[in-house]
Amino acid sequence: MLYQVSTIDALLLGVYDGVLPVSDLKTHGDFGIGTFDGLEGEMLALDGNYYQIKTDGIAYPVSGEITTPFATVTYFEADETFRLEKSANLSELEDFLDLNLPSENLFYAVKVDGNFSYVKARSVPRQEKPYLQLADAVSSQSVFEFENVSGTLVGFRTPEYVKGVNVPGYHLHFITENRSAGGHVLDLEMEKGDAALDITSIFLMELPASGDFYNAELGQNLQEDLEKVEK
Amino acid sequence: MLYQVSTIDALLLGVYDGVLPVSDLKTHGDFGIGTFDGLEGEMLALDGNYYQIKTDGIAYPVSGEITTPFATVTYFEADETFRLEKSANLSELEDFLDLNLPSENLFYAVKVDGNFSYVKARSVPRQEKPYLQLADAVSSQSVFEFENVSGTLVGFRTPEYVKGVNVPGYHLHFITENRSAGGHVLDLEMEKGDAALDITSIFLMELPASGDFYNAELGQNLQEDLEKVEK
Repeated sequence: MLYQVSTIDALLLGVYDGVLPVSDLKTHGDFGIGTFDGLEGEMLALDGNYYQIKTDGIAYPVSGEITTPFATVTYFEADETFRLEKSANLSELEDFLDLNLPSENLFYAVKVDGNFSYVKARSVPRQEKPYLQLADAVSSQSVFEFENVSGTLVGFRTPEYVKGVNVPGYHLHFITENRSAGGHVLDLEMEKGDAALDITSIFLMELPASGDFYNAELGQNLQEDLEKVEK
Repeated sequence: MLYQVSTIDALLLGVYDGVLPVSDLKTHGDFGIGTFDGLEGEMLALDGNYYQIKTDGIAYPVSGEITTPFATVTYFEADETFRLEKSANLSELEDFLDLNLPSENLFYAVKVDGNFSYVKARSVPRQEKPYLQLADAVSSQSVFEFENVSGTLVGFRTPEYVKGVNVPGYHLHFITENRSAGGHVLDLEMEKGDAALDITSIFLMELPASGDFYNAELGQNLQEDLEKVEK
């Protein structure tokens, strides 16, 4: 089962107030990605450890009290594994994984342990109210470039038909092998790696009980905003 | 929690093979709507009783072995109730309910016990393989007209942003007070009634593990098909 808090479109529209403590989120998975109250940094969960990657690029262990406005987690169990021996950039890696999916209509948790000649990642600073929309908020992002680094890509592939709910296609965060640094992946060049897919046919979404979410003008087409934010 | 099997777009594309026995579906709710294996009739669940409304318009009690390709159910608990003293057609009823929603971004189970001067409802006959798409399959529907009848509307209001997953807006089925007849609501004129809303912020979707679903070309814009089918 894939467990999600709120929707990507609510985040795109600036609904950044945390609604669920990480201590609760942890009961739904040991693996995943998201962000934190006030959009403060990138969330990455791996092997049950939750990290907050702040704008200094450092992955801080997360205390249970901090809350999240948007996150997707699962208990990761590999259903399929692949060795990638050839170097690949981000879109080649995604294409390779796509070739190995049983269907584009399911949800997948994606974990790739690899050696990377290059990873470009970002994190976003804590926002102040009134919140900017995400496409504007990311203009203050910090970008990190890693070279010749080992680490793990953590994220999900969600189907096109959940546009508005989650990020269709791949959404990956990165953390170094020593779990000290990382971010939201913007670009990469992988030398070789081991990919694992957790095939998921159950999707559970829990919506915020807050005014900001209640009043957000969801249901618009925010595809353009999403592209600005993800690349 | 609202529990759903498969997606509306899979149904629109002709994925009609049942994937979950009603005996299992019942463990997720006592209230809801859907259809059956092969698109055979309209499902309505109320007070824990599951009915199959076939093309003769009759509501048959459902045995647990029959399966569903698409259904949405919940354990109904009224969060808000309203008395409607003025007569209203379907769109007026929907507008009235909309005025009383805390937010258009949540999910609602909707139950209306009322006296109706008119209800126009339909059911669809069992389809044979190769399955037609739903917009074509409904051309063989049976339409029933009820006059001066008491009964209950059962269904859901889902947010615009789950387009592709469920039917955005209202999706209502009808059953007479003596639970003998009904169908998918096409039109109505209500004299007076009591409406109850169950406000739901948790949505769980379980996808079929079948080739038809795996291979369906989801992620298209099927809005036009949906309109043909719902009206």
